[in-house]
Amino acid sequence: MIVIMKTDTPNLEIQRIIQELQSESITPEKIVGKHKVIIGLVGDTATLSPEHLQQISPFIEKVMRVDKPFKRASLEFRHGEPTEVSVPTPNGVVVFGQNHPIVTVAGPCSVENEEMIVETAQRVKAAGAQLLRGGAYKPRTSPYSFQGHGESALDLLAKAREVTGLGIVTEVMDSVDLPKVAEVADIIQIGARNMQNFSLLKQAGAINKPVLLKRGMAATIEDWLMSAEYILAAGNPNVILCERGIRTFDRKYTRNTLDLAAVPVLRSLTHLPIMVDPSHGTGKVEYVPTMAKAAIAAGADSLMIEVHPNPAKALSDGPQSLTPEGFDRLMEQMEIVGQTVGRWSKKFSLSTATSFSTTKALSKSSLAK
Amino acid sequence: MIVIMKTDTPNLEIQRIIQELQSESITPEKIVGKHKVIIGLVGDTATLSPEHLQQISPFIEKVMRVDKPFKRASLEFRHGEPTEVSVPTPNGVVVFGQNHPIVTVAGPCSVENEEMIVETAQRVKAAGAQLLRGGAYKPRTSPYSFQGHGESALDLLAKAREVTGLGIVTEVMDSVDLPKVAEVADIIQIGARNMQNFSLLKQAGAINKPVLLKRGMAATIEDWLMSAEYILAAGNPNVILCERGIRTFDRKYTRNTLDLAAVPVLRSLTHLPIMVDPSHGTGKVEYVPTMAKAAIAAGADSLMIEVHPNPAKALSDGPQSLTPEGFDRLMEQMEIVGQTVGRWSKKFSLSTATSFSTTKALSKSSLAK
Amino acid sequence: MIVIMKTDTPNLEIQRIIQELQSESITPEKIVGKHKVIIGLVGDTATLSPEHLQQISPFIEKVMRVDKPFKRASLEFRHGEPTEVSVPTPNGVVVFGQNHPIVTVAGPCSVENEEMIVETAQRVKAAGAQLLRGGAYKPRTSPYSFQGHGESALDLLAKAREVTGLGIVTEVMDSVDLPKVAEVADIIQIGARNMQNFSLLKQAGAINKPVLLKRGMAATIEDWLMSAEYILAAGNPNVILCERGIRTFDRKYTRNTLDLAAVPVLRSLTHLPIMVDPSHGTGKVEYVPTMAKAAIAAGADSLMIEVHPNPAKALSDGPQSLTPEGFDRLMEQMEIVGQTVGRWSKKFSLSTATSFSTTKALSKSSLAK
Amino acid sequence: MIVIMKTDTPNLEIQRIIQELQSESITPEKIVGKHKVIIGLVGDTATLSPEHLQQISPFIEKVMRVDKPFKRASLEFRHGEPTEVSVPTPNGVVVFGQNHPIVTVAGPCSVENEEMIVETAQRVKAAGAQLLRGGAYKPRTSPYSFQGHGESALDLLAKAREVTGLGIVTEVMDSVDLPKVAEVADIIQIGARNMQNFSLLKQAGAINKPVLLKRGMAATIEDWLMSAEYILAAGNPNVILCERGIRTFDRKYTRNTLDLAAVPVLRSLTHLPIMVDPSHGTGKVEYVPTMAKAAIAAGADSLMIEVHPNPAKALSDGPQSLTPEGFDRLMEQMEIVGQTVGRWSKKFSLSTATSFSTTKALSKSSLAK
Repeated sequence: MIVIMKTDTPNLEIQRIIQELQSESITPEKIVGKHKVIIGLVGDTATLSPEHLQQISPFIEKVMRVDKPFKRASLEFRHGEPTEVSVPTPNGVVVFGQNHPIVTVAGPCSVENEEMIVETAQRVKAAGAQLLRGGAYKPRTSPYSFQGHGESALDLLAKAREVTGLGIVTEVMDSVDLPKVAEVADIIQIGARNMQNFSLLKQAGAINKPVLLKRGMAATIEDWLMSAEYILAAGNPNVILCERGIRTFDRKYTRNTLDLAAVPVLRSLTHLPIMVDPSHGTGKVEYVPTMAKAAIAAGADSLMIEVHPNPAKALSDGPQSLTPEGFDRLMEQMEIVGQTVGRWSKKFSLSTATSFSTTKALSKSSLAK
Repeated sequence: MIVIMKTDTPNLEIQRIIQELQSESITPEKIVGKHKVIIGLVGDTATLSPEHLQQISPFIEKVMRVDKPFKRASLEFRHGEPTEVSVPTPNGVVVFGQNHPIVTVAGPCSVENEEMIVETAQRVKAAGAQLLRGGAYKPRTSPYSFQGHGESALDLLAKAREVTGLGIVTEVMDSVDLPKVAEVADIIQIGARNMQNFSLLKQAGAINKPVLLKRGMAATIEDWLMSAEYILAAGNPNVILCERGIRTFDRKYTRNTLDLAAVPVLRSLTHLPIMVDPSHGTGKVEYVPTMAKAAIAAGADSLMIEVHPNPAKALSDGPQSLTPEGFDRLMEQMEIVGQTVGRWSKKFSLSTATSFSTTKALSKSSLAK
Repeated sequence: MIVIMKTDTPNLEIQRIIQELQSESITPEKIVGKHKVIIGLVGDTATLSPEHLQQISPFIEKVMRVDKPFKRASLEFRHGEPTEVSVPTPNGVVVFGQNHPIVTVAGPCSVENEEMIVETAQRVKAAGAQLLRGGAYKPRTSPYSFQGHGESALDLLAKAREVTGLGIVTEVMDSVDLPKVAEVADIIQIGARNMQNFSLLKQAGAINKPVLLKRGMAATIEDWLMSAEYILAAGNPNVILCERGIRTFDRKYTRNTLDLAAVPVLRSLTHLPIMVDPSHGTGKVEYVPTMAKAAIAAGADSLMIEVHPNPAKALSDGPQSLTPEGFDRLMEQMEIVGQTVGRWSKKFSLSTATSFSTTKALSKSSLAK
Repeated sequence: MIVIMKTDTPNLEIQRIIQELQSESITPEKIVGKHKVIIGLVGDTATLSPEHLQQISPFIEKVMRVDKPFKRASLEFRHGEPTEVSVPTPNGVVVFGQNHPIVTVAGPCSVENEEMIVETAQRVKAAGAQLLRGGAYKPRTSPYSFQGHGESALDLLAKAREVTGLGIVTEVMDSVDLPKVAEVADIIQIGARNMQNFSLLKQAGAINKPVLLKRGMAATIEDWLMSAEYILAAGNPNVILCERGIRTFDRKYTRNTLDLAAVPVLRSLTHLPIMVDPSHGTGKVEYVPTMAKAAIAAGADSLMIEVHPNPAKALSDGPQSLTPEGFDRLMEQMEIVGQTVGRWSKKFSLSTATSFSTTKALSKSSLAK
């Protein structure tokens, strides 16, 4: 249930209402939007009456139920206002969100050694990536496959951050590793296989770092938003959703089925930023550039691309990794499509978190119904 | 197996080779490409030796096996040269193919009456569509749903063609209706549910009209190309493949899962033109424009869009149909993305079937590996 | 909507009510159950009021709406009474139904030649099969695979019938072949790939032979029952449903995923008899016997098993075909499980269509809720 | 790679060979089968030559490669001998395995309070269950649903164990809870959503309690066996696999698609015991008894059934829980089918772990090929 306050409601009155609504079974949450303040109510709201709540204050504009099972993640809960996830990095603040330029995250599947991760970081930075990805802990189907270098790889990521100024995105697989990972990572990734590791989600909700939540291979859009809700409900509002392909009956030419329609569907359901990972989504480097461009046209706020200095010798996911040269060329192409949809910034948004005025090439409001 | 002839091989020599290769178990097929002539061999080629064949003539450049189960549909069979499907319409020849501008097919799910189909045809033509779609025979899940007006609807499509000059795309559900449908249609559609109706495929292969083959809901890319192969093998080289969504575990917010990666995958496997139908692919009008643009970025050669003068009162598929006004706006947006990828023509390609020189905004050859 | 008549309602009164209910938009259908007569109403029943209908005659016990989208196929439409599909064969009438012994249909994927089909028929008959399956028209993924011997294979099936007295089950792929196939077949099979070939379904509904409707690879239970409804609505009440596996993400060790829970689900939704085909369901002969026994325990009314005199040399589906010896052993095992569930008859039910008194080993009524 | 020793090889010689094979990259593992001793080699075996190894000792009968990606979990690794997982409980040792009677695990989804868990334990024990299931930590899609009583529920399970003597099966969701859970549980359950939580798998491999590994919703058979391999590779040989339904396109009438063919497929691939959970597999109590019987006919070694004293008021999974009365009746039916396949014991196997001589109603060896 949400309580929408009138514009220019005094702050004290908002405090008063929040106190009045607070109870054992209800937790009010203040959401400051661009034009309005909203008070979100989560908990046992079934017995509350919107009409009755309306009486609490003359500054209340409207009281509405959120009928989706995901509450905080729903678009209604922020009354339609998109969330901006701001990530401070040595190079400046990177902002993920619908009204900001597309953010590119790039790097290798696994951190293999210092030279390769630093070199890759330098190359993807030069090409325009704002964040570096790299796995320290690797979820591998086989116990006999390379499992990642773990803690020592975290140090290498820190080194790459120091050298390039790029923020770091890396995966956590176990809640016991969360403190260590959070020390190095600027964004904590929760992988597809852990999307319903609810214990990990709760603990990721208790830290002070943005969380990148990948979609599970058999997760419906609703399952996925419910998993985001775990993180939000635990107190962390900075969640980025990443579509990376679902499992279907056809696995011959692609590793997964990239569900690009998830982008507009999520846009109609949630305020959270949306990333697309065409590397895992297709599993084959030859299809990555095309699907990266399609993802931009579909409205993605961010792209994650696997890049490796020598894909043929990669310890994991070589077949889906671009070379640094391939990534250079991809960024040129992405720029063209990104500019077309008014979502590209030459300066890569590495400035301050001020809202970005999109070029109005494709105005949303002109879409049909 | 294919025999690639040297440039400037005399025609008589090609004839001689074809005659020599012809046998009970082998059918040679002459394919005239832009730069070269290829002789495709289908049949019991397992016992043939490429080295031996090479000896037949000094004009033979190379002999290669096609190792895919689909032969005529494979890219190798045309040595990488894309097929151009030319459709003569009263307004001019419409050409589907990788080196041509994107072709837009639009219209209602079902032909309901003369006024609605003529009006829709006029509106979609004005917005830039080159072909009109409209169902006379409708495959419906329930026997109690509207089944299409059948033969009388074919007359109304003929009327709309006469009034607007637009070519007609309409579905055939039974081989007994094929002659009637082929009389009116400029492109014969075989729907998702009949994609493995092999009897219908064979008969569609025997007629002299292009065939639009929609992907079945549980069809792998390979199944689909094998179905195209049925049509090609029966003698009809003019097949267009249409991705319209596959069936997956998530059917809550979209009707199907639109597999846009099928576009680059098909491009790497086949020479046939590729269409995308975001209306069936998503099943919801609000997601159609976004996915239409994404399909263009993914490299589609053609788009099929459902448009109805009054979607709320449509006899079928109302929820996924754009209004004519919505379609106007969509075409403006498609144009922007289409121009970005160098695949849009102000004149809508309604001229002659001369090859189109794409603007080189995104050069294919610069893609990574 | 159904009208349940009181026991001992005079026939004339039933006639009178049917005449009164008949209208342009409503078709009444008389269903004679064991204890009661029901009048089923299909058509535009939305405007009818059950209370109002009740007034038509004092002999009406109750009027109820059928709220499923499938009407005639629903359990309610027959007020819970199972359909018995009786198939006259030279050896006697074979009855498919919930209160009858399990019927075994066996034979090769394709009819290859007279010797093999007659020999197989003799062997499966000796082992206890009541019907012979064998394909004359074969739906094959590739146009270059063996397509079945067509019309001449129908003659061979007729020959096998003559020699053994077994009834014939064979597939029709095109409505133009329906008369020819119906001449030879005792049961017409519509295959998985044609489950939504609505034109074929309608025509199969107009003939006077039982129809075996296989489940499509991507068909939900509801889609499948709607396809059965097409046949029922066209006037043919004798439909048998055959589960043969659906397509899922795991296709490595089995060809399809056999959905055995479909058996109890269908039992709770429809009155139609249920067959299971573990040969296509698993695609591997080593798993067929186990799944055949599981299907019996799951409550199947009939089993379809592929048997070939020499699977290694079969023109199609060899890997999933039992040898005649393997089938002998399977029948012994099926008998044990069949007797346990009270659904086996030493005489194979080849007598008259009188209802079969099941041994009460597992009484249905004792099941939990 | 496995080294099969000749019968009656002296123990010292086996020790010698193990020492000789031990190296940095190879770990030999001694497996004592009924008739033979096998030395399993896992690690970098690619460079080893079977012929060369054979020379090490005249007591070596044969050296064979395991070509599956799962090594320890493969049937070859134990040369075809099934694993027996022995679970000591106050009532005696319960043995899971192919040559033992079927083990029934029953109980509520969640432990709600002392009275309900003790009462349920008493009831399921009386009906013949050998182990009690009950969730302390519950993986729930929504953060707002009941999450289980956690640690306090573990105490209640201990209480139920004390009162009834039944062994306890309960789920662990986070590796930090593993020590606490292992203190109470006789079998540790890893749920479907954590099947690829590799960190948890590794730690479950390091404890001294049997692990019940449920199949993930999108897990192929191979993925599943690779997850079992994680546990085995970490040193815990006592893994039970539990099929509980996969996610497919049809979710209307059942919650999941129970893949019963997984039972014979696993049997042909692995030596590990196989359990089936028809409660989660169907999600509806009305289909549970039928599918439980089908699972027995399919060869399951164990059944897991949800039972709740008052399903309508259950805090979770009420719709799929049997009442204690329903469970009484189900056990009677399961007994009939279990006896038919020679896998039922009146004394419920609560004795010692001596191998069980199955009644030879259905001899495996008579199956066809």
